[in-house]
Amino acid sequence: MAVDLLGGDHAPAVVVDGALRACHADPSLHLTLVGPAEAAGAVLAALHPAERHRITSIPGSTAAQAVADGHADAAVSAGETGATVVSAARSLGRWPGIRRPALAAVLPTVAGSVILLDVGSTVDPDPETLAIHARLGSAYATVVHDVAEPRVGLLTIGTERGKGDRLRREAPALLERLPRYAGLIEGGDVVLGEAADVVVTDGFTGNVLLKALEASYAWLGTPDQESTRAAVLLGVRGTVVVCHGAATGTDLAGGIGLAADLHRRGAVPAIAAMPVIHVNDMLTHNEVSHE
Amino acid sequence: MAVDLLGGDHAPAVVVDGALRACHADPSLHLTLVGPAEAAGAVLAALHPAERHRITSIPGSTAAQAVADGHADAAVSAGETGATVVSAARSLGRWPGIRRPALAAVLPTVAGSVILLDVGSTVDPDPETLAIHARLGSAYATVVHDVAEPRVGLLTIGTERGKGDRLRREAPALLERLPRYAGLIEGGDVVLGEAADVVVTDGFTGNVLLKALEASYAWLGTPDQESTRAAVLLGVRGTVVVCHGAATGTDLAGGIGLAADLHRRGAVPAIAAMPVIHVNDMLTHNEVSHE
Repeated sequence: MAVDLLGGDHAPAVVVDGALRACHADPSLHLTLVGPAEAAGAVLAALHPAERHRITSIPGSTAAQAVADGHADAAVSAGETGATVVSAARSLGRWPGIRRPALAAVLPTVAGSVILLDVGSTVDPDPETLAIHARLGSAYATVVHDVAEPRVGLLTIGTERGKGDRLRREAPALLERLPRYAGLIEGGDVVLGEAADVVVTDGFTGNVLLKALEASYAWLGTPDQESTRAAVLLGVRGTVVVCHGAATGTDLAGGIGLAADLHRRGAVPAIAAMPVIHVNDMLTHNEVSHE
Repeated sequence: MAVDLLGGDHAPAVVVDGALRACHADPSLHLTLVGPAEAAGAVLAALHPAERHRITSIPGSTAAQAVADGHADAAVSAGETGATVVSAARSLGRWPGIRRPALAAVLPTVAGSVILLDVGSTVDPDPETLAIHARLGSAYATVVHDVAEPRVGLLTIGTERGKGDRLRREAPALLERLPRYAGLIEGGDVVLGEAADVVVTDGFTGNVLLKALEASYAWLGTPDQESTRAAVLLGVRGTVVVCHGAATGTDLAGGIGLAADLHRRGAVPAIAAMPVIHVNDMLTHNEVSHE
Protein backbone atom coordinates (compact mmCIF):
# COMPACT_ATOMS: atom_id res chain seq x y z
CA MET A 1 0.00 0.00 0.00
CA ALA A 2 1.56 3.30 -1.12
CA VAL A 3 0.63 6.58 0.62
CA ASP A 4 1.55 10.10 -0.50
CA LEU A 5 3.72 11.39 2.35
CA LEU A 6 3.17 15.05 1.51
CA GLY A 7 -0.52 14.80 0.59
CA GLY A 8 -2.94 16.77 2.75
CA ASP A 9 -3.15 20.09 4.57
CA HIS A 10 -1.38 18.69 7.63
CA ALA A 11 1.16 16.39 5.95
CA PRO A 12 3.45 14.70 6.69
CA ALA A 13 2.41 14.45 10.37
CA VAL A 14 -1.16 13.41 9.67
CA VAL A 15 -0.05 10.87 7.05
CA VAL A 16 2.29 9.19 9.51
CA ASP A 17 -0.44 9.22 12.16
CA GLY A 18 -2.83 7.62 9.68
CA ALA A 19 -0.25 5.05 8.64
CA LEU A 20 0.34 4.00 12.26
CA ARG A 21 -3.39 3.78 12.95
CA ALA A 22 -3.91 1.66 9.82
CA CYS A 23 -1.08 -0.70 10.79
CA HIS A 24 -2.52 -1.12 14.29
CA ALA A 25 -5.95 -1.88 12.85
CA ASP A 26 -4.65 -4.39 10.31
CA PRO A 27 -1.64 -6.53 11.38
CA SER A 28 -1.04 -7.82 7.84
CA LEU A 29 -0.65 -4.37 6.32
CA HIS A 30 2.66 -3.05 4.98
CA LEU A 31 2.89 0.59 3.95
CA THR A 32 5.20 2.49 1.64
CA LEU A 33 5.32 6.24 2.23
CA VAL A 34 6.09 8.02 -1.05
CA GLY A 35 7.85 11.36 -0.82
CA PRO A 36 11.11 13.26 -0.31
CA ALA A 37 13.77 11.27 1.55
CA GLU A 38 14.39 14.10 4.02
CA ALA A 39 10.73 14.22 5.12
CA ALA A 40 10.48 10.43 5.29
CA GLY A 41 13.77 9.91 7.14
CA ALA A 42 12.85 11.96 10.19
CA VAL A 43 9.43 10.40 10.29
CA LEU A 44 10.66 6.83 10.09
CA ALA A 45 13.44 7.41 12.63
CA ALA A 46 10.79 8.50 15.11
CA LEU A 47 8.79 5.28 14.72
CA HIS A 48 8.69 2.68 17.45
CA PRO A 49 11.13 -0.14 16.50
CA ALA A 50 8.19 -2.57 16.27
CA GLU A 51 6.65 -0.49 13.50
CA ARG A 52 9.75 0.05 11.37
CA HIS A 53 9.61 -3.12 9.32
CA ARG A 54 6.00 -2.43 8.32
CA ILE A 55 6.41 1.17 7.20
CA THR A 56 9.07 1.93 4.64
CA SER A 57 9.65 4.86 2.32
CA ILE A 58 10.64 5.54 -1.27
CA PRO A 59 11.46 8.91 -2.80
CA GLY A 60 9.03 8.67 -5.76
CA SER A 61 6.74 11.41 -6.97
CA THR A 62 3.29 9.98 -6.17
CA ALA A 63 1.69 6.94 -4.58
CA ALA A 64 -0.06 6.14 -7.88
CA GLN A 65 3.31 6.13 -9.68
CA ALA A 66 4.63 3.76 -7.01
CA VAL A 67 1.75 1.40 -7.86
CA ALA A 68 2.47 1.76 -11.59
CA ASP A 69 6.14 0.92 -10.91
CA GLY A 70 5.19 -2.22 -8.98
CA HIS A 71 6.23 -0.97 -5.54
CA ALA A 72 2.73 -1.29 -4.06
CA ASP A 73 -0.71 -2.83 -4.69
CA ALA A 74 -2.80 0.28 -4.15
CA ALA A 75 -2.43 4.02 -3.64
CA VAL A 76 -3.87 6.41 -1.04
CA SER A 77 -3.55 10.19 -1.14
CA ALA A 78 -4.89 13.22 0.70
CA GLY A 79 -3.15 15.48 -1.80
CA GLU A 80 -4.91 18.02 -4.02
CA THR A 81 -7.70 16.06 -5.71
CA GLY A 82 -7.27 17.33 -9.26
CA ALA A 83 -3.54 16.66 -9.26
CA THR A 84 -4.03 13.22 -7.71
CA VAL A 85 -6.59 12.22 -10.34
CA VAL A 86 -4.42 13.44 -13.23
CA SER A 87 -1.34 11.72 -11.80
CA ALA A 88 -3.22 8.46 -11.29
CA ALA A 89 -4.71 8.52 -14.80
CA ARG A 90 -1.31 9.22 -16.35
CA SER A 91 0.75 6.75 -14.38
CA LEU A 92 -1.75 3.86 -14.24
CA GLY A 93 -3.72 4.49 -17.43
CA ARG A 94 -7.48 4.62 -17.88
CA TRP A 95 -9.98 1.94 -18.79
CA PRO A 96 -11.17 1.84 -22.40
CA GLY A 97 -13.90 4.43 -22.97
CA ILE A 98 -13.09 6.42 -19.83
CA ARG A 99 -11.89 9.94 -20.53
CA ARG A 100 -12.72 11.30 -17.09
CA PRO A 101 -12.38 8.98 -14.08
CA ALA A 102 -14.94 9.43 -11.28
CA LEU A 103 -14.48 9.73 -7.55
CA ALA A 104 -17.07 7.66 -5.72
CA ALA A 105 -17.90 8.11 -2.03
CA VAL A 106 -20.15 6.01 0.21
CA LEU A 107 -22.58 7.99 2.37
CA PRO A 108 -24.55 6.71 5.36
CA THR A 109 -28.28 7.35 4.92
CA VAL A 110 -31.50 6.62 6.80
CA ALA A 111 -32.10 3.47 4.72
CA GLY A 112 -28.52 2.20 4.48
CA SER A 113 -25.66 3.51 2.39
CA VAL A 114 -25.64 5.25 -0.96
CA ILE A 115 -22.84 5.61 -3.49
CA LEU A 116 -22.37 9.24 -4.53
CA LEU A 117 -20.32 10.20 -7.56
CA ASP A 118 -18.62 12.27 -8.79
CA VAL A 119 -17.35 13.99 -5.64
CA GLY A 120 -14.68 16.22 -7.11
CA SER A 121 -12.89 14.74 -10.10
CA THR A 122 -14.97 16.28 -12.92
CA VAL A 123 -16.42 19.68 -12.07
CA ASP A 124 -18.11 20.43 -15.42
CA PRO A 125 -19.14 17.08 -16.93
CA ASP A 126 -21.09 16.73 -20.16
CA PRO A 127 -24.13 14.39 -20.23
CA GLU A 128 -22.02 11.54 -21.70
CA THR A 129 -19.55 11.77 -18.81
CA LEU A 130 -22.41 11.75 -16.31
CA ALA A 131 -23.83 8.62 -17.97
CA ILE A 132 -20.44 6.91 -17.83
CA HIS A 133 -20.04 7.82 -14.18
CA ALA A 134 -23.49 6.36 -13.53
CA ARG A 135 -22.27 3.07 -15.02
CA LEU A 136 -19.08 3.15 -12.95
CA GLY A 137 -21.11 3.72 -9.78
CA SER A 138 -23.53 0.98 -10.71
CA ALA A 139 -20.68 -1.49 -11.22
CA TYR A 140 -19.17 -0.45 -7.87
CA ALA A 141 -22.52 -1.06 -6.13
CA THR A 142 -22.70 -4.57 -7.57
CA VAL A 143 -19.11 -5.59 -6.89
CA VAL A 144 -18.50 -3.92 -3.53
CA HIS A 145 -21.99 -3.59 -2.02
CA ASP A 146 -23.48 -6.79 -3.52
CA VAL A 147 -26.44 -4.96 -5.07
CA ALA A 148 -27.39 -7.14 -8.03
CA GLU A 149 -29.34 -4.46 -9.92
CA PRO A 150 -28.45 -1.05 -8.50
CA ARG A 151 -30.95 1.77 -9.01
CA VAL A 152 -29.23 4.91 -10.30
CA GLY A 153 -30.73 8.34 -9.56
CA LEU A 154 -29.81 11.69 -11.11
CA LEU A 155 -29.46 14.43 -8.50
CA THR A 156 -31.41 17.56 -9.37
CA ILE A 157 -33.59 20.25 -7.78
CA GLY A 158 -37.08 19.06 -8.65
CA THR A 159 -38.43 15.73 -9.76
CA GLU A 160 -40.46 17.04 -12.70
CA ARG A 161 -38.64 16.28 -15.94
CA GLY A 162 -37.14 19.44 -17.44
CA LYS A 163 -36.13 20.99 -14.10
CA GLY A 164 -32.55 21.88 -13.32
CA ASP A 165 -29.87 23.18 -15.65
CA ARG A 166 -28.94 22.03 -19.16
CA LEU A 167 -26.88 19.08 -17.91
CA ARG A 168 -29.79 17.78 -15.87
CA ARG A 169 -32.25 18.21 -18.73
CA GLU A 170 -30.03 16.38 -21.24
CA ALA A 171 -28.62 13.57 -19.10
CA PRO A 172 -31.85 11.56 -18.54
CA ALA A 173 -32.03 10.51 -22.21
CA LEU A 174 -28.65 8.78 -21.74
CA LEU A 175 -29.32 7.50 -18.23
CA GLU A 176 -32.51 5.78 -19.36
CA ARG A 177 -30.31 3.24 -21.16
CA LEU A 178 -29.09 1.95 -17.77
CA PRO A 179 -30.50 -1.36 -16.52
CA ARG A 180 -32.26 0.41 -13.62
CA TYR A 181 -32.52 4.18 -13.96
CA ALA A 182 -34.44 5.48 -10.94
CA GLY A 183 -35.04 8.95 -12.39
CA LEU A 184 -34.60 12.36 -10.81
CA ILE A 185 -33.95 12.67 -7.10
CA GLU A 186 -33.46 15.66 -4.81
CA GLY A 187 -30.99 16.50 -2.04
CA GLY A 188 -33.28 15.15 0.66
CA ASP A 189 -33.66 11.83 -1.17
CA VAL A 190 -29.90 11.26 -0.89
CA VAL A 191 -30.18 11.34 2.90
CA LEU A 192 -33.34 9.20 3.00
CA GLY A 193 -31.49 6.64 0.86
CA GLU A 194 -34.64 4.95 -0.44
CA ALA A 195 -34.88 6.18 -4.03
CA ALA A 196 -31.50 5.02 -5.34
CA ASP A 197 -28.44 2.91 -4.57
CA VAL A 198 -26.22 5.14 -6.70
CA VAL A 199 -26.57 8.93 -6.99
CA VAL A 200 -24.87 10.58 -9.95
CA THR A 201 -24.03 14.29 -10.18
CA ASP A 202 -21.32 16.70 -11.29
CA GLY A 203 -18.16 16.86 -9.20
CA PHE A 204 -18.91 20.35 -7.90
CA THR A 205 -22.33 19.55 -6.45
CA GLY A 206 -21.13 16.12 -5.28
CA ASN A 207 -18.15 17.56 -3.43
CA VAL A 208 -20.20 20.29 -1.71
CA LEU A 209 -22.89 17.77 -0.76
CA LEU A 210 -20.42 15.15 0.51
CA LYS A 211 -18.49 17.59 2.69
CA ALA A 212 -21.67 19.20 4.07
CA LEU A 213 -23.26 15.85 4.96
CA GLU A 214 -20.02 14.56 6.49
CA ALA A 215 -19.89 17.67 8.68
CA SER A 216 -23.57 17.29 9.57
CA TYR A 217 -23.07 13.63 10.47
CA ALA A 218 -19.97 14.46 12.52
CA TRP A 219 -21.93 17.17 14.37
CA LEU A 220 -25.08 15.20 15.09
CA GLY A 221 -23.84 11.59 14.97
CA THR A 222 -25.28 8.83 12.81
CA PRO A 223 -26.88 5.78 14.41
CA ASP A 224 -25.13 2.40 14.03
CA GLN A 225 -23.12 3.39 11.00
CA GLU A 226 -19.42 3.75 10.50
CA SER A 227 -18.38 5.78 7.51
CA THR A 228 -15.04 6.17 5.80
CA ARG A 229 -14.30 9.72 4.73
CA ALA A 230 -12.52 8.72 1.54
CA ALA A 231 -13.44 8.23 -2.11
CA VAL A 232 -12.44 5.59 -4.66
CA LEU A 233 -11.18 6.61 -8.08
CA LEU A 234 -13.02 4.61 -10.74
CA GLY A 235 -11.81 4.36 -14.32
CA VAL A 236 -8.05 3.97 -13.83
CA ARG A 237 -6.08 0.74 -13.99
CA GLY A 238 -5.39 0.36 -10.29
CA THR A 239 -6.78 0.83 -6.79
CA VAL A 240 -6.60 4.50 -5.82
CA VAL A 241 -8.29 6.03 -2.77
CA VAL A 242 -8.48 9.79 -2.27
CA CYS A 243 -8.91 11.48 1.11
CA HIS A 244 -9.88 15.12 1.73
CA GLY A 245 -7.10 17.67 1.99
CA ALA A 246 -8.27 18.31 5.57
CA ALA A 247 -8.17 14.57 6.38
CA THR A 248 -7.30 13.56 9.95
CA GLY A 249 -5.15 10.56 10.88
CA THR A 250 -8.37 8.61 11.43
CA ASP A 251 -9.59 9.59 7.95
CA LEU A 252 -6.30 8.51 6.37
CA ALA A 253 -6.35 5.22 8.27
CA GLY A 254 -9.90 4.69 6.98
CA GLY A 255 -8.78 5.43 3.43
CA ILE A 256 -5.85 3.00 3.77
CA GLY A 257 -8.16 0.32 5.17
CA LEU A 258 -10.61 0.87 2.31
CA ALA A 259 -7.84 0.60 -0.29
CA ALA A 260 -6.53 -2.61 1.33
CA ASP A 261 -10.01 -4.12 1.40
CA LEU A 262 -10.70 -3.24 -2.24
CA HIS A 263 -7.34 -4.68 -3.31
CA ARG A 264 -7.82 -7.96 -1.43
CA ARG A 265 -11.27 -8.40 -2.92
CA GLY A 266 -9.97 -7.69 -6.42
CA ALA A 267 -12.68 -5.06 -6.63
CA VAL A 268 -11.21 -2.76 -9.26
CA PRO A 269 -10.56 -5.46 -11.88
CA ALA A 270 -14.01 -6.90 -11.12
CA ILE A 271 -15.63 -3.48 -11.64
CA ALA A 272 -13.69 -3.02 -14.88
CA ALA A 273 -15.04 -6.36 -16.10
CA MET A 274 -18.72 -5.61 -15.32
CA PRO A 275 -20.99 -5.72 -18.39
CA VAL A 276 -22.69 -2.44 -17.46
CA ILE A 277 -19.56 -0.48 -18.35
CA HIS A 278 -18.86 -2.35 -21.59
CA VAL A 279 -21.51 -0.85 -23.79
CA ASN A 280 -21.13 0.91 -27.08
CA ASP A 281 -22.63 4.22 -25.99
CA MET A 282 -19.83 4.64 -23.47
CA LEU A 283 -17.37 4.94 -26.30
CA THR A 284 -19.35 7.30 -28.50
CA HIS A 285 -17.94 10.60 -27.34
CA ASN A 286 -14.86 9.41 -25.55
CA GLU A 287 -11.40 8.59 -26.70
CA VAL A 288 -9.87 5.27 -25.70
CA SER A 289 -6.72 6.39 -24.03
CA HIS A 290 -3.68 5.40 -22.03
CA GLU A 291 -1.68 8.58 -21.83
CA MET B 1 -51.33 37.26 4.55
CA ALA B 2 -52.06 35.60 1.19
CA VAL B 3 -51.35 31.90 0.65
CA ASP B 4 -51.50 29.98 -2.65
CA LEU B 5 -54.29 27.47 -2.07
CA LEU B 6 -53.12 25.13 -4.82
CA GLY B 7 -49.37 25.45 -4.21
CA GLY B 8 -47.55 22.30 -3.16
CA ASP B 9 -47.52 18.58 -3.88
CA HIS B 10 -50.30 17.95 -1.36
CA ALA B 11 -52.44 21.07 -1.90
CA PRO B 12 -55.01 22.17 -0.97
CA ALA B 13 -55.20 19.92 2.13
CA VAL B 14 -51.71 20.75 3.36
CA VAL B 15 -52.23 24.48 2.74
CA VAL B 16 -55.39 24.49 4.87
CA ASP B 17 -53.61 22.49 7.57
CA GLY B 18 -50.75 25.00 7.51
CA ALA B 19 -53.17 27.94 7.62
CA LEU B 20 -54.94 26.52 10.70
CA ARG B 21 -51.65 25.84 12.46
CA ALA B 22 -50.44 29.37 11.70
CA CYS B 23 -53.68 30.90 13.04
CA HIS B 24 -53.42 28.87 16.23
CA ALA B 25 -49.83 29.96 16.72
CA ASP B 26 -50.55 33.65 16.10
CA PRO B 27 -53.96 34.97 17.27
CA SER B 28 -53.56 38.25 15.39
CA LEU B 29 -53.09 36.59 12.00
CA HIS B 30 -55.68 36.80 9.20
CA LEU B 31 -55.16 34.68 6.11
CA THR B 32 -56.44 34.93 2.56
CA LEU B 33 -56.33 31.69 0.58
CA VAL B 34 -55.84 32.46 -3.10
CA GLY B 35 -57.24 29.95 -5.57
CA PRO B 36 -60.28 28.57 -7.40
CA ALA B 37 -63.57 29.24 -5.61
CA GLU B 38 -64.62 25.58 -5.82
CA ALA B 39 -61.49 24.37 -4.00
CA ALA B 40 -61.70 27.17 -1.42
CA GLY B 41 -65.43 26.79 -0.74
CA ALA B 42 -65.28 23.18 0.41
CA VAL B 43 -62.23 23.93 2.51
CA LEU B 44 -63.74 26.94 4.24
CA ALA B 45 -67.08 25.22 4.85
CA ALA B 46 -65.24 22.52 6.75
CA LEU B 47 -63.56 25.01 9.08
CA HIS B 48 -64.59 25.29 12.72
CA PRO B 49 -66.89 28.35 13.07
CA ALA B 50 -64.31 30.04 15.32
CA GLU B 51 -61.79 29.98 12.49
CA ARG B 52 -63.99 31.24 9.69
CA HIS B 53 -63.57 34.96 10.24
CA ARG B 54 -59.78 34.63 10.19
CA ILE B 55 -59.44 32.60 7.00
CA THR B 56 -61.08 33.95 3.88
CA SER B 57 -60.58 33.21 0.20
CA ILE B 58 -60.34 35.05 -3.08
CA PRO B 59 -60.29 33.51 -6.54
CA GLY B 60 -57.11 35.27 -7.78
CA SER B 61 -54.28 33.66 -9.69
CA THR B 62 -51.40 33.84 -7.17
CA ALA B 63 -50.72 35.01 -3.63
CA ALA B 64 -48.14 37.50 -4.96
CA GLN B 65 -50.78 39.01 -7.26
CA ALA B 66 -53.11 39.33 -4.26
CA VAL B 67 -50.37 41.33 -2.50
CA ALA B 68 -49.85 43.47 -5.61
CA ASP B 69 -53.61 44.11 -5.70
CA GLY B 70 -53.68 45.23 -2.08
CA HIS B 71 -55.56 42.21 -0.72
CA ALA B 72 -52.75 41.14 1.62
CA ASP B 73 -49.49 42.31 3.18
CA ALA B 74 -47.33 39.33 2.24
CA ALA B 75 -47.44 36.16 0.14
CA VAL B 76 -46.61 32.54 0.93
CA SER B 77 -46.47 29.72 -1.61
CA ALA B 78 -45.45 26.08 -1.80
CA GLY B 79 -46.06 26.12 -5.54
CA GLU B 80 -43.44 25.35 -8.17
CA THR B 81 -40.48 27.59 -7.31
CA GLY B 82 -39.67 28.90 -10.78
CA ALA B 83 -43.27 29.84 -11.50
CA THR B 84 -43.67 31.47 -8.08
CA VAL B 85 -40.53 33.59 -8.54
CA VAL B 86 -41.56 34.71 -12.03
CA SER B 87 -45.11 35.50 -10.88
CA ALA B 88 -43.84 37.49 -7.88
CA ALA B 89 -41.35 39.46 -9.98
CA ARG B 90 -44.00 40.29 -12.57
CA SER B 91 -46.83 41.20 -10.23
CA LEU B 92 -44.84 43.04 -7.54
CA GLY B 93 -41.92 44.33 -9.61
CA ARG B 94 -38.22 44.08 -8.87
CA TRP B 95 -35.87 46.43 -7.06
CA PRO B 96 -33.64 48.63 -9.23
CA GLY B 97 -30.61 46.69 -10.41
CA ILE B 98 -32.11 43.26 -9.69
CA ARG B 99 -32.64 41.14 -12.75
CA ARG B 100 -32.78 37.84 -10.91
CA PRO B 101 -34.27 37.76 -7.40
CA ALA B 102 -32.68 35.37 -4.90
CA LEU B 103 -34.22 32.82 -2.58
CA ALA B 104 -32.56 32.98 0.83
CA ALA B 105 -32.86 30.22 3.45
CA VAL B 106 -31.65 30.17 7.03
CA LEU B 107 -29.80 27.02 8.07
CA PRO B 108 -28.99 25.88 11.61
CA THR B 109 -25.26 25.25 12.04
CA VAL B 110 -22.88 24.25 14.83
CA ALA B 111 -22.02 27.92 15.51
CA GLY B 112 -25.50 29.43 15.05
CA SER B 113 -27.40 30.08 11.87
CA VAL B 114 -26.18 30.85 8.37
CA ILE B 115 -28.02 32.49 5.47
CA LEU B 116 -27.73 30.40 2.31
CA LEU B 117 -28.64 31.83 -1.09
CA ASP B 118 -29.65 31.20 -3.80
CA VAL B 119 -31.62 28.02 -3.01
CA GLY B 120 -33.43 27.55 -6.30
CA SER B 121 -34.38 30.78 -8.03
CA THR B 122 -31.38 31.12 -10.38
CA VAL B 123 -29.92 27.81 -11.49
CA ASP B 124 -27.19 29.14 -13.82
CA PRO B 125 -26.13 32.56 -12.47
CA ASP B 126 -23.34 34.63 -13.97
CA PRO B 127 -20.70 36.14 -11.65
CA GLU B 128 -22.55 39.49 -11.51
CA THR B 129 -25.75 37.77 -10.36
CA LEU B 130 -23.81 35.89 -7.68
CA ALA B 131 -22.31 39.19 -6.47
CA ILE B 132 -25.76 40.81 -6.31
CA HIS B 133 -27.14 37.83 -4.40
CA ALA B 134 -24.23 38.17 -1.97
CA ARG B 135 -25.30 41.77 -1.32
CA LEU B 136 -28.94 40.77 -0.87
CA GLY B 137 -27.93 38.10 1.65
CA SER B 138 -25.65 40.52 3.45
CA ALA B 139 -28.47 43.08 3.79
CA TYR B 140 -30.80 40.34 5.06
CA ALA B 141 -28.24 39.32 7.70
CA THR B 142 -28.00 42.89 8.94
CA VAL B 143 -31.73 43.67 8.98
CA VAL B 144 -33.15 40.34 10.14
CA HIS B 145 -30.27 38.74 12.07
CA ASP B 146 -28.76 41.96 13.47
CA VAL B 147 -25.29 41.19 12.12
CA ALA B 148 -23.71 44.62 11.68
CA GLU B 149 -21.01 43.53 9.24
CA PRO B 150 -21.90 40.12 7.81
CA ARG B 151 -19.09 37.99 6.43
CA VAL B 152 -19.96 36.59 3.01
CA GLY B 153 -18.39 33.32 1.83
CA LEU B 154 -18.42 31.84 -1.67
CA LEU B 155 -19.26 28.12 -1.64
CA THR B 156 -16.78 26.05 -3.64
CA ILE B 157 -14.91 22.73 -3.54
CA GLY B 158 -11.49 23.79 -2.35
CA THR B 159 -10.23 26.88 -0.63
CA GLU B 160 -7.27 27.51 -2.93
CA ARG B 161 -8.07 30.33 -5.33
CA GLY B 162 -8.68 29.01 -8.84
CA LYS B 163 -10.50 25.85 -7.74
CA GLY B 164 -14.03 25.08 -8.83
CA ASP B 165 -15.70 25.85 -12.14
CA ARG B 166 -15.62 29.04 -14.19
CA LEU B 167 -18.28 30.76 -12.07
CA ARG B 168 -16.31 30.14 -8.90
CA ARG B 169 -13.05 31.33 -10.49
CA GLU B 170 -14.58 34.58 -11.80
CA ALA B 171 -16.89 35.55 -8.93
CA PRO B 172 -14.22 36.36 -6.28
CA ALA B 173 -13.04 39.46 -8.18
CA LEU B 174 -16.57 40.90 -7.78
CA LEU B 175 -17.15 39.58 -4.26
CA GLU B 176 -13.98 41.25 -3.02
CA ARG B 177 -15.79 44.60 -3.35
CA LEU B 178 -18.11 43.59 -0.50
CA PRO B 179 -17.53 45.17 2.93
CA ARG B 180 -16.58 41.78 4.41
CA TYR B 181 -15.82 39.08 1.87
CA ALA B 182 -14.79 35.96 3.78
CA GLY B 183 -13.39 34.14 0.75
CA LEU B 184 -13.90 30.58 -0.44
CA ILE B 185 -15.62 28.08 1.84
CA GLU B 186 -16.45 24.38 1.45
CA GLY B 187 -19.56 22.31 2.13
CA GLY B 188 -18.36 21.37 5.61
CA ASP B 189 -17.81 25.02 6.51
CA VAL B 190 -21.52 25.72 5.92
CA VAL B 191 -22.40 23.24 8.66
CA LEU B 192 -19.69 24.45 11.03
CA GLY B 193 -21.07 27.97 10.57
CA GLU B 194 -17.89 29.73 11.67
CA ALA B 195 -16.41 31.02 8.42
CA ALA B 196 -19.32 33.12 7.17
CA ASP B 197 -22.70 34.60 8.12
CA VAL B 198 -23.88 34.48 4.51
CA VAL B 199 -23.05 31.72 2.01
CA VAL B 200 -23.56 32.50 -1.65
CA THR B 201 -23.88 29.89 -4.40
CA ASP B 202 -25.83 29.04 -7.55
CA GLY B 203 -29.46 27.98 -7.12
CA PHE B 204 -28.75 24.39 -8.16
CA THR B 205 -26.06 23.71 -5.58
CA GLY B 206 -27.93 25.74 -2.96
CA ASN B 207 -31.15 23.80 -3.44
CA VAL B 208 -29.44 20.40 -3.31
CA LEU B 209 -27.46 21.42 -0.23
CA LEU B 210 -30.48 22.90 1.58
CA LYS B 211 -32.69 19.88 1.01
CA ALA B 212 -29.94 17.42 1.96
CA LEU B 213 -29.09 19.25 5.18
CA GLU B 214 -32.76 19.65 6.10
CA ALA B 215 -33.20 15.89 5.65
CA SER B 216 -30.05 15.21 7.66
CA TYR B 217 -31.21 17.52 10.47
CA ALA B 218 -34.68 15.93 10.45
CA TRP B 219 -33.08 12.48 10.66
CA LEU B 220 -30.55 13.16 13.37
CA GLY B 221 -32.07 16.16 15.19
CA THR B 222 -30.36 19.48 15.82
CA PRO B 223 -29.67 20.62 19.38
CA ASP B 224 -31.59 23.65 20.68
CA GLN B 225 -32.46 25.03 17.28
CA GLU B 226 -35.77 25.49 15.57
CA SER B 227 -35.58 25.96 11.86
CA THR B 228 -38.19 27.12 9.38
CA ARG B 229 -38.15 25.14 6.14
CA ALA B 230 -38.98 28.13 3.96
CA ALA B 231 -37.04 30.70 1.94
CA VAL B 232 -37.48 34.44 1.48
CA LEU B 233 -37.51 35.95 -2.00
CA LEU B 234 -35.17 38.95 -2.07
CA GLY B 235 -35.23 41.54 -4.85
CA VAL B 236 -38.98 41.96 -5.41
CA ARG B 237 -41.15 44.78 -4.06
CA GLY B 238 -43.00 42.81 -1.41
CA THR B 239 -42.70 40.10 1.23
CA VAL B 240 -42.76 36.70 -0.45
CA VAL B 241 -41.92 33.41 1.29
CA VAL B 242 -41.49 30.17 -0.68
CA CYS B 243 -41.95 26.69 0.83
CA HIS B 244 -40.84 23.40 -0.73
CA GLY B 245 -43.28 21.61 -3.00
CA ALA B 246 -43.18 18.74 -0.50
CA ALA B 247 -43.94 21.10 2.41
CA THR B 248 -45.99 19.73 5.33
CA GLY B 249 -48.63 21.72 7.22
CA THR B 250 -45.97 22.50 9.81
CA ASP B 251 -43.64 23.77 7.10
CA LEU B 252 -46.38 25.98 5.65
CA ALA B 253 -47.28 27.33 9.09
CA GLY B 254 -43.58 28.12 9.59
CA GLY B 255 -43.47 29.92 6.24
CA ILE B 256 -46.60 31.92 7.12
CA GLY B 257 -45.12 32.82 10.50
CA LEU B 258 -41.87 33.91 8.86
CA ALA B 259 -43.73 36.08 6.34
CA ALA B 260 -45.81 37.69 9.11
CA ASP B 261 -42.71 38.39 11.18
CA LEU B 262 -40.85 39.92 8.24
CA HIS B 263 -43.84 42.09 7.35
CA ARG B 264 -44.32 43.38 10.90
CA ARG B 265 -40.65 44.25 11.17
CA GLY B 266 -40.74 46.06 7.84
CA ALA B 267 -37.83 43.84 6.86
CA VAL B 268 -38.15 43.90 3.08
CA PRO B 269 -38.25 47.72 2.71
CA ALA B 270 -35.38 47.95 5.21
CA ILE B 271 -33.31 45.44 3.19
CA ALA B 272 -34.11 47.35 -0.01
CA ALA B 273 -32.80 50.52 1.64
CA MET B 274 -29.49 49.04 2.85
CA PRO B 275 -26.42 50.82 1.43
CA VAL B 276 -24.74 47.49 0.54
CA ILE B 277 -27.21 46.91 -2.29
CA HIS B 278 -27.08 50.46 -3.61
CA VAL B 279 -23.73 50.43 -5.31
CA ASN B 280 -22.85 51.18 -8.87
CA ASP B 281 -21.40 47.79 -9.70
CA MET B 282 -24.76 46.16 -9.01
CA LEU B 283 -26.20 47.98 -11.97
CA THR B 284 -23.38 47.34 -14.42
CA HIS B 285 -24.71 44.26 -16.13
CA ASN B 286 -28.31 44.39 -15.06
CA GLU B 287 -31.27 46.20 -16.40
CA VAL B 288 -33.35 48.33 -14.05
CA SER B 289 -36.73 46.82 -14.45
CA HIS B 290 -40.30 46.73 -13.27
CA GLU B 291 -42.03 44.48 -15.74
